[in-house]
Amino acid sequence: MNEIPYKIYLNENEMPDKWYNVRADMKKKPAPILNPGTLQPVTIDELSAIFCRELAEQELDDTTAYFDIPEEIRNFYKMYRPSPLVRAYCLEKKLGTPAHIYYKFEGNNTSGSHKLNSAIAQAYYAKKQGLKGVTTETGAGQWGTALSMACSYFDLDCQVYMVKVSYEQKPFRREVMRTYGAQVTPSPSMNTEVGRKINAEFPGTTGSLGCAISEAVEAAVSQEGYRYVLGSVLAQVLLHQSVIGLETKAAFDKYGIKPDMIIGCAGGGSNLGGLISPFAGEILRGEANYDIIAVEPASCPSLTRGVYAYDFCDTGKVCPLAKMYTLGSGFIPSANHAGGLRYHGMSSVVSELYDQGIISARSVEQTNVFEAAEMFARVEGILPAPESSHAIRVAIDEALKCKETGEAKNIVFGLTGTGYFDMVAYEKYNNGEMTDYIPTDDDLKKSIDTLPKVDL
Amino acid sequence: MNEIPYKIYLNENEMPDKWYNVRADMKKKPAPILNPGTLQPVTIDELSAIFCRELAEQELDDTTAYFDIPEEIRNFYKMYRPSPLVRAYCLEKKLGTPAHIYYKFEGNNTSGSHKLNSAIAQAYYAKKQGLKGVTTETGAGQWGTALSMACSYFDLDCQVYMVKVSYEQKPFRREVMRTYGAQVTPSPSMNTEVGRKINAEFPGTTGSLGCAISEAVEAAVSQEGYRYVLGSVLAQVLLHQSVIGLETKAAFDKYGIKPDMIIGCAGGGSNLGGLISPFAGEILRGEANYDIIAVEPASCPSLTRGVYAYDFCDTGKVCPLAKMYTLGSGFIPSANHAGGLRYHGMSSVVSELYDQGIISARSVEQTNVFEAAEMFARVEGILPAPESSHAIRVAIDEALKCKETGEAKNIVFGLTGTGYFDMVAYEKYNNGEMTDYIPTDDDLKKSIDTLPKVDL
Repeated sequence: MNEIPYKIYLNENEMPDKWYNVRADMKKKPAPILNPGTLQPVTIDELSAIFCRELAEQELDDTTAYFDIPEEIRNFYKMYRPSPLVRAYCLEKKLGTPAHIYYKFEGNNTSGSHKLNSAIAQAYYAKKQGLKGVTTETGAGQWGTALSMACSYFDLDCQVYMVKVSYEQKPFRREVMRTYGAQVTPSPSMNTEVGRKINAEFPGTTGSLGCAISEAVEAAVSQEGYRYVLGSVLAQVLLHQSVIGLETKAAFDKYGIKPDMIIGCAGGGSNLGGLISPFAGEILRGEANYDIIAVEPASCPSLTRGVYAYDFCDTGKVCPLAKMYTLGSGFIPSANHAGGLRYHGMSSVVSELYDQGIISARSVEQTNVFEAAEMFARVEGILPAPESSHAIRVAIDEALKCKETGEAKNIVFGLTGTGYFDMVAYEKYNNGEMTDYIPTDDDLKKSIDTLPKVDL
Repeated sequence: MNEIPYKIYLNENEMPDKWYNVRADMKKKPAPILNPGTLQPVTIDELSAIFCRELAEQELDDTTAYFDIPEEIRNFYKMYRPSPLVRAYCLEKKLGTPAHIYYKFEGNNTSGSHKLNSAIAQAYYAKKQGLKGVTTETGAGQWGTALSMACSYFDLDCQVYMVKVSYEQKPFRREVMRTYGAQVTPSPSMNTEVGRKINAEFPGTTGSLGCAISEAVEAAVSQEGYRYVLGSVLAQVLLHQSVIGLETKAAFDKYGIKPDMIIGCAGGGSNLGGLISPFAGEILRGEANYDIIAVEPASCPSLTRGVYAYDFCDTGKVCPLAKMYTLGSGFIPSANHAGGLRYHGMSSVVSELYDQGIISARSVEQTNVFEAAEMFARVEGILPAPESSHAIRVAIDEALKCKETGEAKNIVFGLTGTGYFDMVAYEKYNNGEMTDYIPTDDDLKKSIDTLPKVDL
């Protein structure tokens, strides 16, 4: 038997007690986020009107390398962490590759994804600040589920604006959220001014993520004791998600393994940023070198085909502007089932690391992604989320290259979650009805042309 | 900090390498299963026509205490085992109980339940025998999913007859099975004689589990190189599921803990039998004492209100007869969402242990079960399957008794799986639309009166 077990579990006392802020090691920092009204860098006071104070501080702090993980959060983490770093022996055998494939599996919790790592942190700071509750939006429901679980744990009110079409057509995640005590409102609703306005203007509309964000932000600022929370894109979220990378590195270190290649799917960048942070830090400090690959859908290729510019983080244009690789906030990705990767932009931190050449990017088509997902499920036993399967696709491609060259590379990828609530997409694939969609240059130009003109 | 971690994980080299057959330690053995045609004990040859040879041997062997777990199966187990034994610190705190609550969590695999433990064993022996494939039936789809995963791993054909109403109304599990390469056929189908007959007699019928079993058995015996497999009730299944109890005991032993009370939900008895086997063995050998409780739904109370007699294992009356606690194979349990507990009888092994007073039984109503499920989900972070939640209910009740008496009992229960595919039931509960159903004595008398007259 090989000495490396199928699953490397850290002990609870080996879990990280600090999050790592990769911005601290970046000589050139990500550009500051801007107030959408003034187009000037947001101040801590402006940001604290929307987000909890301590989270706003984390958001703006690009020099502190480590933040203590409060004990209450560490205790919650222990309910589902440390997550296993799995050696994909069966996949290696199936591929006949000399490569050693590992994956960090974040799906063993009821939210089904890594989102819980930041949800619990954001709920904790809201509770600590004495708030009554938080508001957020959710599309397919992964983030909303994670936040519901976190708020239930800290006995916080949780108001989720769920895109109406998902609310009606994907009732299962909605019911998970309700089981955890969240108020789930189909958006656009009649609860908010913006919701009433949209309902009046477009009767019968099934909603959009942009509209749901606008409602959630309005609900937060118009209720005493509420703040808005967000599950990706933000630097604070990447900070919390660094627990993924720190555990991965600790598990590798325990067995004296150095990964050659680190692969993660990238939508808003929360999982990728979290997974790679400590490794990118080593590169930035000149201590090591890794081949880091962000994988995005060909249908929504912000890194590989977008521009690096200031843009609105939301289609409703109520959130701060960020400098990022973007397709334009008006870009509407079609026909892609990986809901978590359908974001027009990319975390500022990930964007800046990409711009500096610390990481590379690759786009993949969804039928190829589902082919990889099915192969992985059959040999590794885990039915992966469509989002995660983007990383699986590239990991398999790289392992097959190793088969040709004979290299025994150590490849690790982030398996962000499970696909149990994505069976409609799998059904399409099983029935041979799935198609690919790649936007034309003209499509992209149209939305990129709508970028705000920001002159700092 | 308490010395006992939130999750006790055994190392892979501490996993059991043998299954334990509790029948070996029973002085009075479970009664033999009977050929439904002759009403005489089935012979190994008769049984081998339906089941794989080695599985038939395991079924009939009530003297061998330990069976080696083949290396191929142990390797598969390593993909999702050892499963964690979790200390429910958060639930204890919520209840304010001095009791120490533990649960053995079997839901961290894509089948979402413990069923995979036996599915992989049955697929292995089918492969070893050189078969082309296996057939089975599935209701809600938990067993079918587990079997699909197992067959996919060993590259065996997997034919699943799924009750038509579930096939149509619960498409998600169907698609998981298809993703793992299974052929899923709505039952009654036109593939089999019995299916065609039922379709002709009852046009538009939505099927039943009894009918699906009959089709699966016919498909197995009428195709060269196929055998039928079953996910519960059988002694071979309890043997494979003993891995649950053996791991639980090893984890307790590692920390020097002796459980006072062992609680499991009981439908056909596979989970309960597996969880309690090594503990029941100690009782049978006079080495220890434990309070073992089987929990069943009040809507389908085979142990608490059934009779101990020979009965058909299936409503189609094609499978062998077994002596068991039963409500009569014609009993149709209504209005209970825990599909896995809707079985008219109970494993012969569990029935005999119950008859000998080694274990006790309790029935609970489903609204109380979902109340416990919701409380558990909110504090422990895992959304439990309705089946598993029966055990949660009694564990909470017992922990609350400890609160009154001040006893610090060690309570362990089996958390057999997750409820991600049961959100329709949770939705009913969330909407306050769930009701309880308890059969009247007359209801039970009617179906019990239909028991076959067997005179050995």
